[in-house]
Amino acid sequence: MVTAADSSSLRDRANQETFERLVQSDPVLVDIRRAGEIVPGLEPNVVLTSGVVMDWDEYGNGQRNAVIGGALFEGLADTPEDADRKIRSGDIIVDGCHPHGCVGSLAGIYTASMPVFVVEDRRYGTKGFCNFYEGPSHKRLNYGVYDQEVDEALRFIERVIAPTMAEALKRSEGGIPLRPLMKRAVHMGDELHSRNTAATLLFIRELFPHLLNVYVDRPDDVSKTLQFMSESDYFFLRLGMAAGKATADAAHGVEGSSVCTAMTFSSKYFSIRVGGLRDAWFSAPLEPMQAKLFDGFTEEDIEFMGGESPINETVGLGGFAQAAAFALQVYQGGSPQDMIQMNENMYRITVGEHEEFKIPYFRYRGTPTGIDVFKVVETSIQPVMDIGVAGRGGGQIGAGIMRAPLACFESAAEAYTEAYPNAAATTVST
Amino acid sequence: MVTAADSSSLRDRANQETFERLVQSDPVLVDIRRAGEIVPGLEPNVVLTSGVVMDWDEYGNGQRNAVIGGALFEGLADTPEDADRKIRSGDIIVDGCHPHGCVGSLAGIYTASMPVFVVEDRRYGTKGFCNFYEGPSHKRLNYGVYDQEVDEALRFIERVIAPTMAEALKRSEGGIPLRPLMKRAVHMGDELHSRNTAATLLFIRELFPHLLNVYVDRPDDVSKTLQFMSESDYFFLRLGMAAGKATADAAHGVEGSSVCTAMTFSSKYFSIRVGGLRDAWFSAPLEPMQAKLFDGFTEEDIEFMGGESPINETVGLGGFAQAAAFALQVYQGGSPQDMIQMNENMYRITVGEHEEFKIPYFRYRGTPTGIDVFKVVETSIQPVMDIGVAGRGGGQIGAGIMRAPLACFESAAEAYTEAYPNAAATTVST
Repeated sequence: MVTAADSSSLRDRANQETFERLVQSDPVLVDIRRAGEIVPGLEPNVVLTSGVVMDWDEYGNGQRNAVIGGALFEGLADTPEDADRKIRSGDIIVDGCHPHGCVGSLAGIYTASMPVFVVEDRRYGTKGFCNFYEGPSHKRLNYGVYDQEVDEALRFIERVIAPTMAEALKRSEGGIPLRPLMKRAVHMGDELHSRNTAATLLFIRELFPHLLNVYVDRPDDVSKTLQFMSESDYFFLRLGMAAGKATADAAHGVEGSSVCTAMTFSSKYFSIRVGGLRDAWFSAPLEPMQAKLFDGFTEEDIEFMGGESPINETVGLGGFAQAAAFALQVYQGGSPQDMIQMNENMYRITVGEHEEFKIPYFRYRGTPTGIDVFKVVETSIQPVMDIGVAGRGGGQIGAGIMRAPLACFESAAEAYTEAYPNAAATTVST
Repeated sequence: MVTAADSSSLRDRANQETFERLVQSDPVLVDIRRAGEIVPGLEPNVVLTSGVVMDWDEYGNGQRNAVIGGALFEGLADTPEDADRKIRSGDIIVDGCHPHGCVGSLAGIYTASMPVFVVEDRRYGTKGFCNFYEGPSHKRLNYGVYDQEVDEALRFIERVIAPTMAEALKRSEGGIPLRPLMKRAVHMGDELHSRNTAATLLFIRELFPHLLNVYVDRPDDVSKTLQFMSESDYFFLRLGMAAGKATADAAHGVEGSSVCTAMTFSSKYFSIRVGGLRDAWFSAPLEPMQAKLFDGFTEEDIEFMGGESPINETVGLGGFAQAAAFALQVYQGGSPQDMIQMNENMYRITVGEHEEFKIPYFRYRGTPTGIDVFKVVETSIQPVMDIGVAGRGGGQIGAGIMRAPLACFESAAEAYTEAYPNAAATTVST
């Protein structure tokens, strides 16, 4: 018979194993491919969007526009009305990104023809995919806008940026390891969610020798690619997200683990996944967020459109590394003291400290990593996330701090207790 | 008759003017040239070294070796003994860097054939020169070592790196403005003296497009140059120093100013220059420093060999921006709390806050800029500097915090009182 003590150590061991996978993951950018060629189940008539998939009518306006924009971009429909009809009839299928190995930024639209970064976890073999940052314009498909300008930006990425980068990447012989870049970036003021300035530079420097090789054949494309990467301090985010997904999927699936292995949201619900609870998602309505808006916008203008970039917080970055990124205050508000306090709180709900991502201000203490749903429930401390804010009219209108609803963690804890009745009987306090 | 009140406002006005020049300076990298072609007074038989020039016998072992190494490198002598003899006879002339518009890193050796960065202050027209970072080896001429390895590194810079960069720079049409790069770097964890990681990356990115242009003609040299710049996180320091010199010289020479416009040291003395006191230097013996040494070295191994990189502190960077660079603790020791406190103290001895270089941790407060010798004397707060530490056997053995001796400021204050008897009669307290 399994005693409470044994069960407790089952959970402890499982959480420790999950934590170790999270911190030992070794994500490498190995390829850039058309999503339809490599993303499992991304058939030509599928549009992926952020969050746990809902009934079509449940999606808010912005996220719905983004899905429709994706269908139009992919040529699956001629007009928004046509797209809407085909989604209702099942000719176009809308699904969540996560089950396909993808993570969506904001509305997070994926269609078969879009290029994606392919990041492989060299240690555990998992793959994460993410499509490209669309550029510095406030109008982007993933912020719910689809018009000629957005279309042109997407085509430019598809025809120039992605193939050029893919070509350079091929010359890197084995791909570009992301973990060392991410480690350095955290020492250079990035928390790798809302600030990716250093990581973007480090990545460009890494790719540059290979771009030089491509230059002889395609000088124009290389110059454009370099310019595109250079003008977007956010460029690295998608690589970080694909790395986070590969890492989180490597950590997922440890029997008995109560550690969160994904956080995602749609226009309506925030949802989490737990390491030892297979494919179950635990959802709760989104809470209002604490945002700093661009000039001319008010709280009234905020519209949630989804977002899966909290995969980065899941692996110990973003809001969990804020004290490494004081420069963020200008972008998302709050004082350095607020950032330090939020960051310190995250140590109370996590399994351990990252062995590679470390915060200089905390005397190189590792970032808090591996959110234990029971610790969240016991302390009522909500995981914090640094996210971009979309506006009612489409486009980005600011950035700020989002908090994961406690109810997700409460229902996950309940489900865990049902699945592991003995393991849950003891309280883990650290 | 001039009253005390009027005199005080003369000094206030002069210090304000000095401060404004310091913070409004606009240094631009405009050229890379052989020192002999562009540095005023750098004749073929001259060797420049750090600090106010002393009698030859006064130089410590390491700095003397560096000067002799410079003479050998330049072909001015066949052996160290020959060099020593020619220096004593006056066939080889040893002089300080500052009077020639140069600033030396550590021993700071300049000879006519060495390539230098030419930085021009676009607003005030002054020029600052600095030679190149020698590379990541601990053995370097500026750390008092000259052997075949050091010689090869210097020749490599002369034959490959400098001409390639010069060629790229020519294509930039007008040069590369350094102020915006420095501003960004301070938001990315550099204080731009002992940490230049971000600035180096930003500079490389700025030069990329021009290097691409050169690549077609000189692929090998471009690849090597890129690699050289990429492997040296310190690369930018020399650009920062040349910028600092151009800025400090622009600020120098305001009648009535009691603001320090240069800090420099030789193997023996620390010296400062004051804005309103022309070419006078005020010296005092060096004090022991607070260092973190590489493994295997002890305090006993420290040897001062000179250094003029404190030009960066003179313009509001380095030790005056430590709270922007917590990652430095690993390199030079100390806790983030120490760094914050030292940085805060610097506000008590400076004229104002930099309008462009701002510290995120201090909620984007500008760095303390413009050291007023009277404030130093009144508070007994010593200016702090982040510097590399040389070892008795030559080479770098660590890094740490150096403090400017109070005696320099006391004698400068006395000289000021003599020069401006009425201005000094009142006490400026802010």
